[in-house]
Amino acid sequence: MRRAIALAARALGSTSPNPVVGCVILDADGRTVGEGYHQRAGGPHAEIHALADAGERARGGTAVVTLEPCNHTGRTGPCAQALIDAGVSRVVYAVADPSPSSPTSSEQGMPHSGAPSGGAATLAAAGVEAEGGLLADEAAAGNRAWLTAVQTGRPFVRWKYAAGLDGRSAAADGTSRWITSAESRADVHRLRAEADAVVAGAGTARADDPHLAVRGRDGVTQPLRVIVDSNATAVKPDARVLDDAAPTLIAVATDADASHLTGRAEVLRLPRAAGGGLSVPDLLAALYERGVRSVLLEGGPTLAGAFLAAGAVDEVTGYLAPVLLGAGPAALGDAGISTISEALRLDVTTVERIGPDLRITAVPATAATKEN
Amino acid sequence: MRRAIALAARALGSTSPNPVVGCVILDADGRTVGEGYHQRAGGPHAEIHALADAGERARGGTAVVTLEPCNHTGRTGPCAQALIDAGVSRVVYAVADPSPSSPTSSEQGMPHSGAPSGGAATLAAAGVEAEGGLLADEAAAGNRAWLTAVQTGRPFVRWKYAAGLDGRSAAADGTSRWITSAESRADVHRLRAEADAVVAGAGTARADDPHLAVRGRDGVTQPLRVIVDSNATAVKPDARVLDDAAPTLIAVATDADASHLTGRAEVLRLPRAAGGGLSVPDLLAALYERGVRSVLLEGGPTLAGAFLAAGAVDEVTGYLAPVLLGAGPAALGDAGISTISEALRLDVTTVERIGPDLRITAVPATAATKEN
Repeated sequence: MRRAIALAARALGSTSPNPVVGCVILDADGRTVGEGYHQRAGGPHAEIHALADAGERARGGTAVVTLEPCNHTGRTGPCAQALIDAGVSRVVYAVADPSPSSPTSSEQGMPHSGAPSGGAATLAAAGVEAEGGLLADEAAAGNRAWLTAVQTGRPFVRWKYAAGLDGRSAAADGTSRWITSAESRADVHRLRAEADAVVAGAGTARADDPHLAVRGRDGVTQPLRVIVDSNATAVKPDARVLDDAAPTLIAVATDADASHLTGRAEVLRLPRAAGGGLSVPDLLAALYERGVRSVLLEGGPTLAGAFLAAGAVDEVTGYLAPVLLGAGPAALGDAGISTISEALRLDVTTVERIGPDLRITAVPATAATKEN
Repeated sequence: MRRAIALAARALGSTSPNPVVGCVILDADGRTVGEGYHQRAGGPHAEIHALADAGERARGGTAVVTLEPCNHTGRTGPCAQALIDAGVSRVVYAVADPSPSSPTSSEQGMPHSGAPSGGAATLAAAGVEAEGGLLADEAAAGNRAWLTAVQTGRPFVRWKYAAGLDGRSAAADGTSRWITSAESRADVHRLRAEADAVVAGAGTARADDPHLAVRGRDGVTQPLRVIVDSNATAVKPDARVLDDAAPTLIAVATDADASHLTGRAEVLRLPRAAGGGLSVPDLLAALYERGVRSVLLEGGPTLAGAFLAAGAVDEVTGYLAPVLLGAGPAALGDAGISTISEALRLDVTTVERIGPDLRITAVPATAATKEN
């Protein structure tokens, strides 16, 4: 199963709106005879790849899968039936399908039959031994974004920020290149590659003219680049985010004049929220509808504050550089917190050194309590 | 030597203006027969304690000392001579006396003779084998504040701050109790106990009415509590810092009316610096003159900025709580840094979990480079 989890992880960021899945086929003597993973939505599922790899040697063997085999009749046929047809006698999976009753009907290329999506019952009915739960936590961790998205009905949101030890994300004059190290910046590209969409706000677009695509990593599926530009004034026609390195979506208010973006990016129109910005839930709903299951929120402080105020941050990843600035914009702006008792409490999950910097990951305290 | 270093560490914070020193006496067969450490200025040095503990068994033995034995004729007599008189045949020390030529004349109760302060030459002249450098780095680390102070001529300054992950030290309404955990707050009392003086500014005095004494630790030497209150308006006659838990010094400008403090605290008058506050170097010189060798700077942001701008911070200890505030005062205010190239670069030395919080220690990058 560890091998299957590792196989699944290869496709993180490339399978949206599907989960990552890995599969290992053992023959009747327990030898590995096939491996596969789900590489992209619309492509064959992990089990199909692994069965093709194993060929006849799968007969009488065991399929080890990170997620309960599907029961869909989709583009590649239901995996449960494929396993039965291949003569597999036992299926061991880690995580049960999280959405048995109203599941994956929105998945691209996989119209749902209406039956329970999990295939364990189908397998059992055909006389195939089916057993779930092996290394379930470990496998679920690899699919955390997708599982969170399916459970909440909106994309998983990881807020990434970079700051000095005093929380400043730029100096007094706005300069910020570079607070963090090359190692940290490379790590951010890893996070981008794992995400379905990378989101930044108008302030960041104005100050940094960010590119937001993944660089320095081969064979990745580029995330959707999203700029929240309510007034459609921050993204200029020559903005770097409008190049052809990755698809781009500019979210603007329904009343904004976005004519300068025509032909340069997809324009998503959303109603304004109370404060004049766009509604975070509306934005996330629109992204979910497009198949986005995980979002890397790259700021800046205003947008991060809006996401936090909306309760729409599932994980915080902070790159803290050993730098003091003493002045300049903070990494996080108003999040609707006015007194200490309202502070957003987190639980630190990991602390790692990335070059000279620290990478701190944390999750909202209630979420951690729920998970543990 | 490790034992001697551990003995020395027992007195950290209690020996000012002297260093901490530990001594172990081995008899001629290498058995430990005496132990001692310097407990307070004016009291016997570590060697004297250890020799008294060993008695006649020191004869022909070895003295293991963390610092080169002194050559002074002070209140307790020179240690080099005492070791010779006790018949010790070998002295192994870790760190050489850092100030052989113009050294310890300001040490209380130890008028200096004018001769080199280090006693190794005296020992050698009397036929005692004297050898330095054993575990020197480890021993020096235990005396880092004192060694830095002797080398720079001002107290070692450790700036301690507490903040959320976004660098805010309080919420928008100024409330800050408690951002960090009980474990972190207890750890701060340890830092206070190790310091000769604890320093805070007028803003902190006004906002928090801090006490600044060590609580929850038995047998500690209370640090001098120092409030930098340039205009003598922040410390009220009933301020907690004016109680009798520890000595208190209020630093005010020469032109300030501090009559309300008379009889309640020592008042130190200093000239104003350009910005209207007190000169940090003048303050540190005055504290050094009083025997203060280590300062714990507890903020707030304005005073911390002034210290950093003056290049007067030797170590940064940040307690980062997994909390986001999004608004409110930052841990660090203006430090004279206006653009990213002027950022104060540090090297992280340690990262530890303290309860739910992180404790990050860092030193100015140039200092670390020099040390390594």
